[in-house]
Amino acid sequence: MKTEIPYKMYLTEEETPRYWYNVKAHMKNAHAPFIDPATQLPCTKEQLSTVFCEDCVDQELDDTNEYIQIPEPILEFYRMFRPSPLVRAYFLERLLDTPAEIYYKFEGNNTSGSHKLNSAAAQAYYAKKQGLKSITTETGAGQWGTALAMAAAFYGLDLDVFMVKVSSQQKPYRKEVIRTYGANVIPSPSDTTNAGRKILKEYPETGGSLGCAISEAVEKAVTSESCRYVLGSVLDHVILHQTVMGLECKTALDKYNVTPDIIIGCVGGGSNFGGLIAPYMGERLQGKNEVDFVGVEPKSCPTLTRGKFVYDYCDSAKMTPLAQMYTLGCGFMPSPNHAGGLRYHGMSPIVSKLYHEGFMRAVAVEQSKVFEAAVTFAKCEGILPAPESAHAIRVAVDEALKCKREGKKKTILFGLTGTGYFDLASYKLYNDGQMTDYIPTDEDLQKGFDTIPKCAVNEGLM
Amino acid sequence: MKTEIPYKMYLTEEETPRYWYNVKAHMKNAHAPFIDPATQLPCTKEQLSTVFCEDCVDQELDDTNEYIQIPEPILEFYRMFRPSPLVRAYFLERLLDTPAEIYYKFEGNNTSGSHKLNSAAAQAYYAKKQGLKSITTETGAGQWGTALAMAAAFYGLDLDVFMVKVSSQQKPYRKEVIRTYGANVIPSPSDTTNAGRKILKEYPETGGSLGCAISEAVEKAVTSESCRYVLGSVLDHVILHQTVMGLECKTALDKYNVTPDIIIGCVGGGSNFGGLIAPYMGERLQGKNEVDFVGVEPKSCPTLTRGKFVYDYCDSAKMTPLAQMYTLGCGFMPSPNHAGGLRYHGMSPIVSKLYHEGFMRAVAVEQSKVFEAAVTFAKCEGILPAPESAHAIRVAVDEALKCKREGKKKTILFGLTGTGYFDLASYKLYNDGQMTDYIPTDEDLQKGFDTIPKCAVNEGLM
Repeated sequence: MKTEIPYKMYLTEEETPRYWYNVKAHMKNAHAPFIDPATQLPCTKEQLSTVFCEDCVDQELDDTNEYIQIPEPILEFYRMFRPSPLVRAYFLERLLDTPAEIYYKFEGNNTSGSHKLNSAAAQAYYAKKQGLKSITTETGAGQWGTALAMAAAFYGLDLDVFMVKVSSQQKPYRKEVIRTYGANVIPSPSDTTNAGRKILKEYPETGGSLGCAISEAVEKAVTSESCRYVLGSVLDHVILHQTVMGLECKTALDKYNVTPDIIIGCVGGGSNFGGLIAPYMGERLQGKNEVDFVGVEPKSCPTLTRGKFVYDYCDSAKMTPLAQMYTLGCGFMPSPNHAGGLRYHGMSPIVSKLYHEGFMRAVAVEQSKVFEAAVTFAKCEGILPAPESAHAIRVAVDEALKCKREGKKKTILFGLTGTGYFDLASYKLYNDGQMTDYIPTDEDLQKGFDTIPKCAVNEGLM
Repeated sequence: MKTEIPYKMYLTEEETPRYWYNVKAHMKNAHAPFIDPATQLPCTKEQLSTVFCEDCVDQELDDTNEYIQIPEPILEFYRMFRPSPLVRAYFLERLLDTPAEIYYKFEGNNTSGSHKLNSAAAQAYYAKKQGLKSITTETGAGQWGTALAMAAAFYGLDLDVFMVKVSSQQKPYRKEVIRTYGANVIPSPSDTTNAGRKILKEYPETGGSLGCAISEAVEKAVTSESCRYVLGSVLDHVILHQTVMGLECKTALDKYNVTPDIIIGCVGGGSNFGGLIAPYMGERLQGKNEVDFVGVEPKSCPTLTRGKFVYDYCDSAKMTPLAQMYTLGCGFMPSPNHAGGLRYHGMSPIVSKLYHEGFMRAVAVEQSKVFEAAVTFAKCEGILPAPESAHAIRVAVDEALKCKREGKKKTILFGLTGTGYFDLASYKLYNDGQMTDYIPTDEDLQKGFDTIPKCAVNEGLM
């Protein structure tokens, strides 16, 4: 056991994980299956395989194997940008004058600027292995689109990214990174799909929506034998790929005999949080630790803290299967003043189930407080965080200050998922004192809840 | 000695350099001193100290001490973003199918996005140590301004950044990063200085120039007891601080018994290149190696390959002392189609002297070829490089392909100084097939040479 903890812990190549961790293997109650809205029956492997790559579907449905081997070509790609550093936040601790020990896993040191590349690498490889020629996805802010473009370039796959039209106009540089990696960026709605053409006919001036972009990407995938759809969060196999973060953390901390008391991550679709906590949650489910797991979400999109645990569509266009999850309703739209991601109406079924069964808690925070923490962090730790990641920083700071008030020396680990280099319009609002907060009223939320499907599985009929 | 070389080499905290390396200690002929244009006599320490921090002036004038200790507070700041990775470019080697071994030192993994932070950290510390309240500088594209803002925030100094007005308008996000770190960004020319007011009176609609921004920053420094001016390149003490890169490389490569045959870096003001090569150049000057040192510059701003080795002003406003260096003339303006940095008319006196005495060579490249190499590199190594850094990539690729043609197994090391996240307008031009090249004619260059001062030191009268 080593005793002195350095500022940054990098695993050697020999120490890096060779397996992903499947937390479902230790969940006593598996989350409920996807339901085909047409038949109200669980989706079959065959149904899912028309949309997703075969290996991903196998992983999606695997509730039993604790460790899933990472194929060598993915390990090779991981070597390009992993291992990521686990950082001891000595500067932040000093600034807060807290007895707490603070650690963060930093996933922003790659050109996609976030952890998204962990799953993009895997899904692109499986598409290549299956003999596919192309993959397709949607992107809003562009982080996921960039990650997938990097992965597609690495494995030599064609990629169509349906980018919400208004985003592609407002974030021309995000679009340009994706293009630099050779992917085709299609502002959505487009005239390349039936779904796009239908929307364009009805609303010729629309700036598009993530729901519409998903519909276009899924249509593109299901209408071509050599193309599949790739999703950047929410699904079990995406969380599985993201466990590489949690496993690296655990290996590094175990070397120094450190066990976190609290693990904090932001939650949008849930893949970063799910991946970060997985190995520790696996132990918790087996009664081997009592870690306090905290998912942090925006008060303006309070999926866990104020949502309903029901079956809902994964997209706003109601094209996907139904998933049992915490949701604000597939028609929920976050307020226009919401900065950054974490705007998804639903939540990973794994994270939803763990939350529903009391194995974790959730905290909702206001974005002005989030940016305040972000700027404090940037100045003392030298990294300008993504607004999403700053949600975790906010709660880590709050927990460290609580330790100070209570004179407790807790060990805090949080996920710093990415950098904010493409979010400077939001930082400008904050710097100019013009950032506003928004907390939806119950009536506001009810509008979203009204879009939850009234179906047999939700009516207790199945 | 270790034998298997990993993808990424990170030094441990114990292995990181505690000293900077002063290459001047082994230069048989020190470069010529700065000259006061008014008296035509060498600048005194006192003169320089009205502009720069005292410790920096001491370092500037130190031609004898080989190692200069890095003060502990700077080492602490370095721990925030250093050590940087030394990467074995296995993916690039495979793509090129070359027998060459390629390594690069990657300095872009910090929020300033470049190596500039190495000297910003040092200079801000020395200002603080001297009891100053504030520092000031100019910035064009914004990389240096960001680095200094980070350092000023860390040490608790006020910072005024005079940012070329047209840049602050064209790159609002760069400006915003600087503001986020608490610095004051003043579009230049401004009405806060005599120099700025004079220009504004003559040219009320001007977009500003780096020359004018330097004049404003220097005026601000010399007219205040508690403020000094801080420069991001060119000077000996800046190169000294940048030697941390070269020292980290050498420590890492020595562990694996690797000696570079070629070391390649881009050259603008020369601080990145000078810092990267320093420890190897020190050996070369002592006859201990025969490394091939290659400085890469744009064909559109060919300071070393087509410039004159004379005394010239360091700024275009002719406010600074005269330095003996390669120069295109202080009035030289690069063509408007020039992307990114490396647009300085002069060159570090150290690098100029080494080049003049034949200890290194220089290569000039066209920017379309540079961006071609940049995109190839981004796709296979996963890092979107800054246009400046991509100049080094271009020549590293060319050298590796030469090794392939000649069947030679050389070891190539190059400096990857930064990331291109704020240069996507240039990438867009390239992606759209609209990037153009420019090679100045002899007549074009003559216009710049005509601005070189006709003074005693240049007329052979002194």
